Amino acid sequence: MTEQDFPPLAFSGCPLDRGEAIRRDEAAMSALLTQPASRRIVLRGGEPLMRADGRLVRYPLTDPEFAPEGDLVFLGFEDNCALFAGETSDASEPFEDVRFSDPRAAGMRLEAGESGIYAFARSLLLWRERRGFCSNCGGRLQAVDGGLRRDCPACSTFHFPRTDPVVIMLPVDGEHCLLGRQAAWPERMWSALAGFMEPGESIEEACAREVHEETGVCVDHARAEYVASQPWPFPSSIMIGLIVPAATRDVTIDPAELEAARWFSRADVRDMLAGIHPDADIPPKIAIARRLLEVWAAR
Amino acid sequence: MTEQDFPPLAFSGCPLDRGEAIRRDEAAMSALLTQPASRRIVLRGGEPLMRADGRLVRYPLTDPEFAPEGDLVFLGFEDNCALFAGETSDASEPFEDVRFSDPRAAGMRLEAGESGIYAFARSLLLWRERRGFCSNCGGRLQAVDGGLRRDCPACSTFHFPRTDPVVIMLPVDGEHCLLGRQAAWPERMWSALAGFMEPGESIEEACAREVHEETGVCVDHARAEYVASQPWPFPSSIMIGLIVPAATRDVTIDPAELEAARWFSRADVRDMLAGIHPDADIPPKIAIARRLLEVWAAR
Repeated sequence: MTEQDFPPLAFSGCPLDRGEAIRRDEAAMSALLTQPASRRIVLRGGEPLMRADGRLVRYPLTDPEFAPEGDLVFLGFEDNCALFAGETSDASEPFEDVRFSDPRAAGMRLEAGESGIYAFARSLLLWRERRGFCSNCGGRLQAVDGGLRRDCPACSTFHFPRTDPVVIMLPVDGEHCLLGRQAAWPERMWSALAGFMEPGESIEEACAREVHEETGVCVDHARAEYVASQPWPFPSSIMIGLIVPAATRDVTIDPAELEAARWFSRADVRDMLAGIHPDADIPPKIAIARRLLEVWAAR
Repeated sequence: MTEQDFPPLAFSGCPLDRGEAIRRDEAAMSALLTQPASRRIVLRGGEPLMRADGRLVRYPLTDPEFAPEGDLVFLGFEDNCALFAGETSDASEPFEDVRFSDPRAAGMRLEAGESGIYAFARSLLLWRERRGFCSNCGGRLQAVDGGLRRDCPACSTFHFPRTDPVVIMLPVDGEHCLLGRQAAWPERMWSALAGFMEPGESIEEACAREVHEETGVCVDHARAEYVASQPWPFPSSIMIGLIVPAATRDVTIDPAELEAARWFSRADVRDMLAGIHPDADIPPKIAIARRLLEVWAAR
């Protein structure tokens, strides 16, 4: 089995036409804001307003319920209708089957494509919130391109949303794989090693550096195997998932990063996937870490 | 042949121990700045000072030649000696076999590991230059962690270097592959399609979106094949190289992005690689676009 045999990962599969060309057309973007068919989804503190059926709630732009604070960001088109997203601060309680959902829980409860729309909206809105000022001159920024760019009128610098690449990897040695756990995690929880990429390194080099920094284990990064990637809107990463052959076995953890690292057998991993391991759990289905384990265990 | 059979790409292969743990130790970092064994490399406007033999020039920190403006950034250790980088504005002319080199030319002329060191230094210094102010509150930032983080004393936001993921891909259909050209490029030049990833999309989805936006061609993104990645310090991207099966052939270019897109046969590509094609050239060896073509042509 390969990654293609598994269903799409949560937060991917955004079905929208992102409308690249129309974004740059200011008049067309303004017109979409007055079209009766245009809709908006609603986030509050990053939490999406969703129905029990796994769908995001869509409001006409004129609907006063959960009115947005600040500008709407443009997400794209679905069925030729424009879809926007906005943050509300309206503290009122929604209906029973319409709820603001904890972001990670939303990843589990939203339909596949819906969680992709949510990931896009959340990343964009969080980025906007932390990007009020120009990092080059300190001036106030203005949104353009439907919110997918922010410009500085003072020094003419353009600012684009951040997407931070993160490597997440499963070092393997024959019938064993290496997982780590952080002190802050729930008891029993183990997961793949991960870390942000730095400038001036390839994906494979970042993988080797992170594994070595966190566990002291050396990997054969030239044989790292790309498995899958996943947008991770907490706040705006792209998780790049790898399986990599280990070159050494001895573990020396960096206590600033991990509480422990441990080699598990393939049989262990199958038990963890089945939820019957005596002392270890792994992340839920929304996490690419679990996908790496599923792919490896199925070999 | 697979990507592993080819030599490392330019701007990768940085051989330094990046010294993750010591970065966070302010006293240790200060001590390194007074150690006689510590060295610095020099950039001027992003151009590295290098020797004709393909090595970066390393100065003791006390050497007045090409003195740095502003703080040095810490790159890591080589042979247990700390290596820093600084930008100089000293306009004096270096010796004949010691020259500031155009950045792309440096990619071709620097030894493999040296170009990785340069990529790291250039990305970090350019990022610092454009990150004087906090994007959250407009306050002035201070460098910490040897320059690998910039903090805002006013609002306590941490800022990390940007690494922008870019997808670069070769759509293929049997014996043909699709290349594009931009109007600003030299005559005859064709290259792989490429674009920045957006929030809320996987690598494969970004690949499909970019190919469709630029050329109207649909690809089977579930069967996209990761080939290699390359740090690209212009200013700070990670190029993620894919070969992807096309699902359609008809080309409709976006004139804002491309001047033309064209299907080339495998025989064409072999001629382009050999430099004997009658009307088309491809990028030089430092570019991952060429690597994608090399890998595909060798199949």
